[in-house]
Amino acid sequence: MIKLKRYEKLADEISALIREGVLAANDRIPSVRQACNTYNVSPATVFKAYYLLEDRGLIQARERSGYYVREHVQQALAEPAMQAHDAAATDVDVSELVFSVLGSLKNPHTVPFGSAFPSADLFPLARLARSMSQGLRQLSPHAIIADQTDGNAELKRQVAMRYMMTGVMLPMEELVITNGAMEALNLCLQAVTEPGDLVAIEAPAFYASLQVLERLKLKAVEIPIHPRDGIDLDRLEESLATLPIKACWFMSSFQNPIGASLSDSSKQRLSDLLHRHQIPLIEDDVYAELHFGFRPTRPLKGYDNDGLFMHCGSFSKCLAPGYRVGWVAGGRYTQKLAQLKLMTTISPAIPSQAALADYLQHGGFDRHLRKLRHSLELQQQAMLAAAARHFPKSTRVTRPNGGYFLWFEFPEQVNALKLFQLALAQGISLAPGPIFSAKRAFNHCARLNYGHPWGKTSERAMEVLGQIIHSF
Amino acid sequence: MIKLKRYEKLADEISALIREGVLAANDRIPSVRQACNTYNVSPATVFKAYYLLEDRGLIQARERSGYYVREHVQQALAEPAMQAHDAAATDVDVSELVFSVLGSLKNPHTVPFGSAFPSADLFPLARLARSMSQGLRQLSPHAIIADQTDGNAELKRQVAMRYMMTGVMLPMEELVITNGAMEALNLCLQAVTEPGDLVAIEAPAFYASLQVLERLKLKAVEIPIHPRDGIDLDRLEESLATLPIKACWFMSSFQNPIGASLSDSSKQRLSDLLHRHQIPLIEDDVYAELHFGFRPTRPLKGYDNDGLFMHCGSFSKCLAPGYRVGWVAGGRYTQKLAQLKLMTTISPAIPSQAALADYLQHGGFDRHLRKLRHSLELQQQAMLAAAARHFPKSTRVTRPNGGYFLWFEFPEQVNALKLFQLALAQGISLAPGPIFSAKRAFNHCARLNYGHPWGKTSERAMEVLGQIIHSF
Repeated sequence: MIKLKRYEKLADEISALIREGVLAANDRIPSVRQACNTYNVSPATVFKAYYLLEDRGLIQARERSGYYVREHVQQALAEPAMQAHDAAATDVDVSELVFSVLGSLKNPHTVPFGSAFPSADLFPLARLARSMSQGLRQLSPHAIIADQTDGNAELKRQVAMRYMMTGVMLPMEELVITNGAMEALNLCLQAVTEPGDLVAIEAPAFYASLQVLERLKLKAVEIPIHPRDGIDLDRLEESLATLPIKACWFMSSFQNPIGASLSDSSKQRLSDLLHRHQIPLIEDDVYAELHFGFRPTRPLKGYDNDGLFMHCGSFSKCLAPGYRVGWVAGGRYTQKLAQLKLMTTISPAIPSQAALADYLQHGGFDRHLRKLRHSLELQQQAMLAAAARHFPKSTRVTRPNGGYFLWFEFPEQVNALKLFQLALAQGISLAPGPIFSAKRAFNHCARLNYGHPWGKTSERAMEVLGQIIHSF
Repeated sequence: MIKLKRYEKLADEISALIREGVLAANDRIPSVRQACNTYNVSPATVFKAYYLLEDRGLIQARERSGYYVREHVQQALAEPAMQAHDAAATDVDVSELVFSVLGSLKNPHTVPFGSAFPSADLFPLARLARSMSQGLRQLSPHAIIADQTDGNAELKRQVAMRYMMTGVMLPMEELVITNGAMEALNLCLQAVTEPGDLVAIEAPAFYASLQVLERLKLKAVEIPIHPRDGIDLDRLEESLATLPIKACWFMSSFQNPIGASLSDSSKQRLSDLLHRHQIPLIEDDVYAELHFGFRPTRPLKGYDNDGLFMHCGSFSKCLAPGYRVGWVAGGRYTQKLAQLKLMTTISPAIPSQAALADYLQHGGFDRHLRKLRHSLELQQQAMLAAAARHFPKSTRVTRPNGGYFLWFEFPEQVNALKLFQLALAQGISLAPGPIFSAKRAFNHCARLNYGHPWGKTSERAMEVLGQIIHSF
């Protein structure tokens, strides 16, 4: 566990109250004296916590009056509920649609609400370049060849240490370094399925997982996911009992696109369920480091004690986009995954691995992460506030505690693919709902990316989007 | 075409005469005056050519007598012939055997005759590290994300220029940058086959191609390959006429493991054959730059005028091991290959691409290649000479004009897997014949790597190998 200072813990607790709506916009937060009594801390600790909350844009001081929850923090639009979803197995056929949407993102002048990546400006690229020089200087010629088989040992040690911080003890030997999480997820599926097999995924699901299923000729069993509670466990239990599901592919934290995270008790129940049926889990956890609270998330992998779960992570979303370094903690499938990796790409780039190994030791990763999370949280608030101003009042929107996506449910008459076309004509991209479903459901939904610095262009783009949505 | 100086051309012609045995060991080569007359060049040109040949270890001066072909150049052991091979389709099941062999290579103290890589000491790693710094400095944050879809534009331009040097005009748009050639080859197979399909490969074939076929559940049709003439085209013609072959996977230059290269007329005939049947070719050409003659090889891709051939290349064997940058020139399959790449790994590392783009512009690639080829050629001669000294006289061995592998055919009673075990126990690795065949044929054969600087250890290892072989 990351050791939190007392004032950070206090700020975290108050953040949670605000996010969960216990403290609403313009509510006065406890006075310093009250807080000292309530939380049994010193006035200095309270001050430091409040300064931190102010810095994070959650509260503001009013002269002679104390601290208040800021206006734009307030959720003006309601949250979406879970949509009913048929759980029968479906052949997947969305790749062409996804590629036509992704192709639209190439124009650098388009407002990138449809992008899958946060802005590269949020990452310490210059510092990483220094770590690259340092890493290459220390790399022996022998390692350039040998690390292709085994991965960079120091990098594996550093990744194992980050698992420790989430409370998961993981031997380095269980890690296979891959070409980003995308390769890891591909390998996991190939390790435990054959063409024609059924795989349980979320609905809505990350579109790339649908493309991978399609490519490997697997069938999708779509399990609905609630924006706050996460995957529908009753439904999953039923599907596992009635369908010959061979694997589950889930995101336990800040699910893409809906932002849900499982509670600890849900994680325990899900783990029990999968162990009872002995169904391997492929855990896609690429947003794990982008939590807005101070506490790191504990992956489902932490609830697995006999190697049934494969946990896939990556540095692409939290540190080093384009370096293409991810990994899988492969449990009982580790050797098979390592062999599949050798047969698919041999190895991810050795210089990238050396650079990250050096950065994780000396670069200040936790400091960078605090800054990144803070930026993302503020940008989320800005997008939520803009949506409240410009979108119809009956629009529903998620408010995830991490990541960089919002999921919008528009009024029924909105056609997301049409909306996508109209917005693109005005230079604004978005990710339309149907690309997140094997059934092309979520026709009136869209995912918007708030991972780019907010400014007038973004504000104006939200206004234009609002006008288009109103026109339906 | 690389523009050769007149003396380089002359040296090249004489090298060929020596390699082909027209000039034998201790033969006197033409006097300077004779050469001036024969080749219609100036004495200075002849002197420069002879100095070059001396420098390459092919000839030596004897006082007052002139230049002679050096002793150890001479091929003391005969070349192998082509082995008969059943062309029926075969399920592939060699992966475990291959992995057990590869696992043996991890010990850095083992003499690496079994390795698939040349020594990393042969590559300009420090210069590449400088290109990495330079490349990262020039890379915009936007490109770190955008290049994942399209590849580094400057790198693609540089690769297209190298095709031009072999006489192949290739639009940049036909290039998909991949995570080494291994990913390119995987994607090509997936682009044109379905599980259960038949694919024609060489016998013996690169073992990784067998592993990939096994993984993708494809069946192998093994076409015998002659060490000097290359693939048996009559046999291929017959197989294409009688079997539902969906694709061919061939190496046109310095084939691994047997070292064969196709002549221009064979390339033309092969191309005609495949176009008549409209069978896509997957051309694995990762050793193209490692030719000992001065002339670059022209790939089969250069004989294709309607996009039927996919040409896969890589920098891993000729410049930057571990950087994991390869490519495919995809012909009519380019878009499909680009999409498959996005679904498999998204992209090879952007820093690696930026480093190579800078190096190809400013690093002195051709100078490095000349040095590398020279080292490999000398090392080949040293290994051939050692084999002639220590191995049974009935041993046959190839003498390829490039690459870094020799293929040995031992007397019939030698069991290559047994030999592998016995040699490993003495700290010497080799690649036993059966891992190069879906049928586990080539039981008395082995591939030896001469890609490492030659020295006393290598010499002693050849002696020990010879003792083991004699013991059978």
